[in-house]
Amino acid sequence: MNQKIVFERVIHNNFDDFISLVKQLAAYEKQDLPDRQAETRLKKDALSKTPRFEAYLVKEQEKIVGYFIYYMTYSSYLALPTLYIEDIFVIEGWRRTGIGKKMFEFCARQAKNRGCGRMEWCVYNWNIPAIKFYRELKATRLEKTYYRLDKKQIARLY
Amino acid sequence: MNQKIVFERVIHNNFDDFISLVKQLAAYEKQDLPDRQAETRLKKDALSKTPRFEAYLVKEQEKIVGYFIYYMTYSSYLALPTLYIEDIFVIEGWRRTGIGKKMFEFCARQAKNRGCGRMEWCVYNWNIPAIKFYRELKATRLEKTYYRLDKKQIARLY
Repeated sequence: MNQKIVFERVIHNNFDDFISLVKQLAAYEKQDLPDRQAETRLKKDALSKTPRFEAYLVKEQEKIVGYFIYYMTYSSYLALPTLYIEDIFVIEGWRRTGIGKKMFEFCARQAKNRGCGRMEWCVYNWNIPAIKFYRELKATRLEKTYYRLDKKQIARLY
Repeated sequence: MNQKIVFERVIHNNFDDFISLVKQLAAYEKQDLPDRQAETRLKKDALSKTPRFEAYLVKEQEKIVGYFIYYMTYSSYLALPTLYIEDIFVIEGWRRTGIGKKMFEFCARQAKNRGCGRMEWCVYNWNIPAIKFYRELKATRLEKTYYRLDKKQIARLY
């Protein structure tokens, strides 16, 4: 497929398109959608001088077909930053067309430019199409389990 | 147990103690130890004006009994930072004494002060004592799988 894919950094002008995609991913992952206050925070955190993450829209012939968010984490053993992909999403009807691969290639170039030792991300175990894609990408599946405390659980500890 | 636990931010003065503990954890997790160049990078990344992570030593009556490292990640759905614990380690002979709980309580206070929506971390699936501890902590086990690309795998993509 002869694709002309464009990666567009999320800025003020395209922020509404971005929010709309975040909500689509949240719905796909059966998570609560960000409310109005969360949208305001998201904008501040994305567009401040020291942004908490970097977000990109993915366009094919002016049509928005996906988005991704990453930020830097860190490996103490390597003593190098890791490019961690928090969200990655291709809209329905555009999956299995090679766009996901191009998004990973873009992130790989960013990881190189930032001097990262690794790229990492997580996938829900029910998301079989994504898992199949990561296997095709020849990514290494880590034998690790992820734990979380939410705000209420955190409050029990202080 | 009547413990007087002190949390000491890693700075120039105690950096050698910190490196020694990172190596102990790497050995415990059967990972490659940081080499001399990695040690230099680790120091720069910990102590620069915009540190890539925050590290603490844990002391009981002047004896160093553990350390932890965390940094901020981000949840797009919550639009809030997450306190992510990258390393957490209690030296042999001091495990199962309540020190781990106190380390999590310290991190919970930090998460509160930073306005985090979540605390997260990962554990190797073979680390049964740690998994038992996280269960006792009533943390939520996520049904997620962790993927990684190392430097060589990244280079295949750009």
